Amino acid sequence: MTTQSPRERHTERDSDPAFALHRGGKLEVRSTVDVSDHAGLSLAYTPGVARVCSGIAESPELVDAYTWRSNLVAVVTDGSAVLGLGDIGPEASLPVMEGKSLLFKQFGGVDSVPIALNCTDVDDLVETVARMAPSFGGINLEDISAPRCFEIERRLRERLDIPVFHDDQHGTAIVTVAALRNAARLTGRTLGDLRAVVSGAGAAGVAVTKMLLDGGIGDIAVADSKGMIYAGRDGLTPVKEELAAISNRAGLEGSIENALSGADVFIGLSAGEVPEEVVATMAPQAIICAMANPNPEVHPDVARKYASVVATGRSDFPNQINNVLAFPGVFRGALDAGASDITEGMKLAAADALADLVGDDLAADYIIPSTFDARVVPAVSAAVAEQARKDGVARA
Amino acid sequence: MTTQSPRERHTERDSDPAFALHRGGKLEVRSTVDVSDHAGLSLAYTPGVARVCSGIAESPELVDAYTWRSNLVAVVTDGSAVLGLGDIGPEASLPVMEGKSLLFKQFGGVDSVPIALNCTDVDDLVETVARMAPSFGGINLEDISAPRCFEIERRLRERLDIPVFHDDQHGTAIVTVAALRNAARLTGRTLGDLRAVVSGAGAAGVAVTKMLLDGGIGDIAVADSKGMIYAGRDGLTPVKEELAAISNRAGLEGSIENALSGADVFIGLSAGEVPEEVVATMAPQAIICAMANPNPEVHPDVARKYASVVATGRSDFPNQINNVLAFPGVFRGALDAGASDITEGMKLAAADALADLVGDDLAADYIIPSTFDARVVPAVSAAVAEQARKDGVARA
Repeated sequence: MTTQSPRERHTERDSDPAFALHRGGKLEVRSTVDVSDHAGLSLAYTPGVARVCSGIAESPELVDAYTWRSNLVAVVTDGSAVLGLGDIGPEASLPVMEGKSLLFKQFGGVDSVPIALNCTDVDDLVETVARMAPSFGGINLEDISAPRCFEIERRLRERLDIPVFHDDQHGTAIVTVAALRNAARLTGRTLGDLRAVVSGAGAAGVAVTKMLLDGGIGDIAVADSKGMIYAGRDGLTPVKEELAAISNRAGLEGSIENALSGADVFIGLSAGEVPEEVVATMAPQAIICAMANPNPEVHPDVARKYASVVATGRSDFPNQINNVLAFPGVFRGALDAGASDITEGMKLAAADALADLVGDDLAADYIIPSTFDARVVPAVSAAVAEQARKDGVARA
Repeated sequence: MTTQSPRERHTERDSDPAFALHRGGKLEVRSTVDVSDHAGLSLAYTPGVARVCSGIAESPELVDAYTWRSNLVAVVTDGSAVLGLGDIGPEASLPVMEGKSLLFKQFGGVDSVPIALNCTDVDDLVETVARMAPSFGGINLEDISAPRCFEIERRLRERLDIPVFHDDQHGTAIVTVAALRNAARLTGRTLGDLRAVVSGAGAAGVAVTKMLLDGGIGDIAVADSKGMIYAGRDGLTPVKEELAAISNRAGLEGSIENALSGADVFIGLSAGEVPEEVVATMAPQAIICAMANPNPEVHPDVARKYASVVATGRSDFPNQINNVLAFPGVFRGALDAGASDITEGMKLAAADALADLVGDDLAADYIIPSTFDARVVPAVSAAVAEQARKDGVARA
């Protein structure tokens, strides 16, 4: 009896090129050593492997030199906030996680493995990742919903001595800060001259706001679905209370439309549409980063009528704010340095390195390098590794 | 500043070829699809990947067709019983787990990932593996100490709908049963004609005994460090109580030396040496499988003076009993069939398929195929997949 495995049995779904490409998955694990004969096998497996195991048991630091884990990142999710699809669960999230792994390898030379967990409780997630940590050189948290993602990352960073990085937060923040730094430079200003309004208080909105504060933004205020977040607003979650305490020095209340009047920067991370007449009230030389996918909060054709610089999350418009400009180089640098953590300084160093690559070519339609610019990962990883050493978290 | 990463910094240890081969580890994760341009990326990642995620969210069974997990096995350990080295912990176990993964790929075409956990409590281990199960098509438990390994495997088999297989138990048992079936045939007998004595009541000893009982062995008795295990012996653990209840029909008590007098089969899984004068008391046409590594319980040169058939765990003597003859084909077959479990019938089918490959070439120094025999995995996997369908656990 001949029966095709599920991997092989084609259906009409495969007429969609996305399904056809995904058939059988997008990843494989391969050997990097020759084990085609007894001699190779007797080194890579018993009896030779026992000497390497004993060596690591005696000198635990050898694990990074003689196993693959020093180049291996776990891409961990619970499938609770996948792309714009929301809480689709661990199994349905796997194609995105595999995609992340192939980007890690292609752009950063980093090996990674999708680990989609069927638990959503914060304690359970932290405990599970901590238990599997001996197998990995780093943890990339992915598509975990807010506000759980903040506590999960904080507790894992405290507990583990390997880098832990929630890409939806910090990858987006690094690229946004780089883009804004260059947009400011293009318009003869610095971050300190700018007042920004962020739409969205999820993982990316919170991280972008905090990183822009670290980077010296003039003022920044965040809106959620109920309007501007300010100290004393009723019913704030702990995360938004903290946000209110550190942001919105001007004390803006009410709708985001009001807040945008006279603002220098709009950062869209929520998909909430901003009407043209509101965009028209922003300050001269406005900067608009409308990153919702596939529909930006302000269409670039509209935004360009009022703003000096426009960026989106899409590849078919100039100035694509794409995490792939950050995470491969960040982990490449952290792993190369044997970093025990990814510090705020390392994230800012990544943003600066990314911004600096634009150099003298800076223009309204070129504030951030292309995702296929081969200089990106070497520049970002070198900056991150150097900062890891300055910050005292490097072991190499 | 140029600094070498831990992966690159060679030391005098690398003069040992085993260390040199292990530098940087033995595995990598690679993409199986082309993502070298925007068109490929927009299918493998956003926006195209979202359609595949949505498809799986709507029809969960699609996960096996459109992700890599249907070909992916987690090699799970806690590092508590690694080779002959004992409890060396998760980090030091990684070289063995990487070796297992490369054997999975080379022999079975199965992708696998080492997951070394830093917890040893049975509840914690079961819970952790169950939480990560959505990412994998099977679980290979490895080098987990007895008696915890029995309960961990039993509970994970009950809880998960993917194959769970403790190789130290069943891989060894499958190959041993195949070898004994052929040794019996060579000497004009069947398993039912044989009385066997097993040295060692650990993971392998228990599994070999149970599988030989399933396979119809005449009688079988097991010895631990305190002598023969029989019903009513003081201080038996629950696992050994169960063993006493199902084995040793003859009610042998006392030392293994006494039990071997007149026995047809000796199965060594303990490293406890058996003196020549004891071997001399075995029945005519004795069969000796002395599998301790690197020092068999009875040296083959001694064993051959008294036995008709001699097997060991070593590659430098005839009849090597090596798990690699079993686990790649067992998982290949289980994954091809989309099996939800690896049943006792599937294990016996694997043993039969392995034994049958020897065919008319059967001889005292050829009771089991070579580990490099290319017929092994196709034969074992086909038999396992067919039995999965007969046993009603196949989804493909």
